[in-house]
Amino acid sequence: MARRKKIYEGKAKILYEGPEPGTLVQYFKDDATAFNAEKHDVIEGKGVLNNRLSEFFMTGLNAIGVPTHFIKRINMREQLIRQVEIIPLEVVVRNTAAGSMSKRLGIEEGTALPRPIVEFYFKDDALGDPLVTEEHIIAFGWATQQDLDDMVALALRVNDFLSGVMLAVGIKLVDFKIEIGRIWDGDFMRLVVADEISPDSCRLWDVKTGDHLDKDVFRRDLGSLTDAYTEVAKRLGVLPTNVTHPTKPTLIN
Amino acid sequence: MARRKKIYEGKAKILYEGPEPGTLVQYFKDDATAFNAEKHDVIEGKGVLNNRLSEFFMTGLNAIGVPTHFIKRINMREQLIRQVEIIPLEVVVRNTAAGSMSKRLGIEEGTALPRPIVEFYFKDDALGDPLVTEEHIIAFGWATQQDLDDMVALALRVNDFLSGVMLAVGIKLVDFKIEIGRIWDGDFMRLVVADEISPDSCRLWDVKTGDHLDKDVFRRDLGSLTDAYTEVAKRLGVLPTNVTHPTKPTLIN
Repeated sequence: MARRKKIYEGKAKILYEGPEPGTLVQYFKDDATAFNAEKHDVIEGKGVLNNRLSEFFMTGLNAIGVPTHFIKRINMREQLIRQVEIIPLEVVVRNTAAGSMSKRLGIEEGTALPRPIVEFYFKDDALGDPLVTEEHIIAFGWATQQDLDDMVALALRVNDFLSGVMLAVGIKLVDFKIEIGRIWDGDFMRLVVADEISPDSCRLWDVKTGDHLDKDVFRRDLGSLTDAYTEVAKRLGVLPTNVTHPTKPTLIN
Repeated sequence: MARRKKIYEGKAKILYEGPEPGTLVQYFKDDATAFNAEKHDVIEGKGVLNNRLSEFFMTGLNAIGVPTHFIKRINMREQLIRQVEIIPLEVVVRNTAAGSMSKRLGIEEGTALPRPIVEFYFKDDALGDPLVTEEHIIAFGWATQQDLDDMVALALRVNDFLSGVMLAVGIKLVDFKIEIGRIWDGDFMRLVVADEISPDSCRLWDVKTGDHLDKDVFRRDLGSLTDAYTEVAKRLGVLPTNVTHPTKPTLIN
């Protein structure tokens, strides 16, 4: 099989040219980074787990009519996705104060928020992904007011769905981050959930014990990240057969 | 004359009980602080200049129907104001990128913005007055959506007025900060511009030379702050007769 063209390599994923125009192959690496990549490690099996978990969440969203970039999983570490034009904003939905919000606004971690709060961060590693307001976004043309309204609506639907999924398996959805992309069908543009949804991009607390089942385990050195992600995958019934020793993919260059 | 009751002392001003209910006396100190009070100095005459300049701007705003807390100047360092319930937000309007926005968003200082951008910062010294979004403000009840809409409208009117004032004397209004307060007339509430408007709370650049005529002179050690503020006061024709050696007020305890 011919070598594939690498389109983009990020901290946790690689995008390759897909088999048909308008598609990409998304490859999940085992790399874990935090604090704007100041902390870095390789967690064997993380990519396999996130590929499975993102498949699970995206498939569920597609099924309830929340459009995503996800088409199908290809193998242990790869999934076929639609090529989108990523909006350069991280969209964060918070149900409970934690992390940067607790620090920024002086709200104790674990405090229930009066209602879900949607935040936008400008995707720029050099600037440390700064929080931005709708004023900034519109004035600088990163998205239109219509985009923003649609993004908030999309993010809140994802929050409803994910909150439900997690509640069902004894996990509190504290917050999560999504990215959103534009897909053009001729002149018609629509927004879809892109990137990934996984314990890398959520805060998940065990309802009973309060244990962290997300990337904070890595950020804060709370134990084994693989164990935490495996626990989430187990509860959701999406545990792959061979997590800790995945076959090295042979097609990747 | 009887001692007055001190209501509040901030970094640059003191508020005393006023002569009538619903009024306060605002006293302008010579203290200059920056970087959340990490840098501090006493600049002789600054309080006198800011008292005059704030009087000038607030009187002008009152005259065009933008309500403010200002009633009248009492003496060199004091003015009579209406007591308001301060909304705990700093409202910043920016016409040109500078200071924290340049740093936060990686925009070179001096870059003209596509349009004036209104920002809100949560007034909390311990947190370093963090930038907040409308989502935060409404969810935490710091202001209502109606308040916010009114605050943006008020801030943009102040921007129009101040831009005009400054343009007329060869100064570019880069950005400024105001605070806004609530005044209750029975059940009827209205928002008014409060605090002060002075070179302490604006960025003012000489149109021809680019010289800073504002508190950045202090923040960045660019020369004499008194000279800079005196230049602004001179151009606006509001220079008091005795700036550098004001009579010490005798009524203050």
